[in-house]
Amino acid sequence: MAAWARAVRGLLLDISGVLYDSGGEGGGVPIAGSAEAVQRIKASGLKLRFCTNETQATREKFVKKLQGLGFDISVAEVTAPAPAACRLLKERGLRPHLLVHDDLVPEFADIDKTNPNCVVIGDAAENFSYANLNEAFRVLIGLEKPVLISLGKGRYYKETDGLKLDVGAYMKALEYACDVQAEVVGKPAKAFFESALAEMGVRPEQAIMIGDDIVSDVGGAQQCGMRAVQVRTGKYRQISPPSDALC
Amino acid sequence: MAAWARAVRGLLLDISGVLYDSGGEGGGVPIAGSAEAVQRIKASGLKLRFCTNETQATREKFVKKLQGLGFDISVAEVTAPAPAACRLLKERGLRPHLLVHDDLVPEFADIDKTNPNCVVIGDAAENFSYANLNEAFRVLIGLEKPVLISLGKGRYYKETDGLKLDVGAYMKALEYACDVQAEVVGKPAKAFFESALAEMGVRPEQAIMIGDDIVSDVGGAQQCGMRAVQVRTGKYRQISPPSDALC
Repeated sequence: MAAWARAVRGLLLDISGVLYDSGGEGGGVPIAGSAEAVQRIKASGLKLRFCTNETQATREKFVKKLQGLGFDISVAEVTAPAPAACRLLKERGLRPHLLVHDDLVPEFADIDKTNPNCVVIGDAAENFSYANLNEAFRVLIGLEKPVLISLGKGRYYKETDGLKLDVGAYMKALEYACDVQAEVVGKPAKAFFESALAEMGVRPEQAIMIGDDIVSDVGGAQQCGMRAVQVRTGKYRQISPPSDALC
Repeated sequence: MAAWARAVRGLLLDISGVLYDSGGEGGGVPIAGSAEAVQRIKASGLKLRFCTNETQATREKFVKKLQGLGFDISVAEVTAPAPAACRLLKERGLRPHLLVHDDLVPEFADIDKTNPNCVVIGDAAENFSYANLNEAFRVLIGLEKPVLISLGKGRYYKETDGLKLDVGAYMKALEYACDVQAEVVGKPAKAFFESALAEMGVRPEQAIMIGDDIVSDVGGAQQCGMRAVQVRTGKYRQISPPSDALC
């Protein structure tokens, strides 16, 4: 066993595409063997943290769904973008216009949203309508100093009925229209991985990130000094037009 | 009078934001003095060509609307992206999946659209739904060699009820998701201006482009060797967060 492997104290697990494929009735389908893998990790004594860019639901609702699918997971074990964004908004006195999934809105309950001075975009799914995108665009371009905060920057993800555009695509649309660069909260942002590591009490070189996204999961973790493993489930595609290295 | 001004033989006129603001009942509102300006240009003996990135309607329907608003304009005087795209599709044996406005579809009547091997995106307006964007994305990422053709790459435009995201924003979303670069047909593509000049029988240094978009109209024309004038109507914004130079 290599020295680095003996030094491992904690694992960071992506959820969508690693533990389950989302979508359809019941909210998704577990990936074979993943619930058992979580149990084995927990039994091994390794520290475990779920590190997700999920923004289609509050952590409470998301965790409840995963428990229903057979996973041993609690809200306290999950690092997700919305709470990190709320901390950032409060620190900087930002009042968001939200372009997010209806089910994520409760995460922003304590945040002042009157007279917005920034736009927060998440994986809004059906809320990515023509009207809603125009509205977010108008708020953003109307600001003296446009601030766009994106909950992740994924290109796409896999649901049970096929691939779907992720928040990153819509982030790019608003960036281009308003000539701004979004601030990304969530993977692959370094601060996001660092807070997950701090919550585990583990140093980067003692941790491994496991995910299906080569940029958000693998690239982000590596930039943070961690090792990372890409699974071949979820959005992983063996034949690669375009290169999987960029998905 | 400067030597270059005496050499001018033809004018290229953008339409939306220059002649009229689109949207609302009746399809738009003429900008004060513009119909008279078209008449004066025609009476002056200068050659005139309307050079538009309009893709929300066939040229026939678009011209009829403008005639109804009081403009002296005919289909034969209009250079627009859809016919240019059709020529390109035929030349290269491309069969498009269309993400365009319903009213533009007839322009592609002669084009084989079975078993698509490319995606053509225009200003689809209400057709820019979450479902339609996902569908175009899936076609594109499923191709062995993804080809994305964009009818213009404008950031936004002004309608009577406010600013709207233009095709360029959605083009960027698909480019990012699929890691491809779109081929732009329409302004600011050099080939598009060149065909408009050829249709007038005028050389670049003998022509002036007049538009409200600093990139698509002014930048594109200048790259083609023409002079260009930016009007202060349409999307022009005097106070500029972000810089008007980039809108």
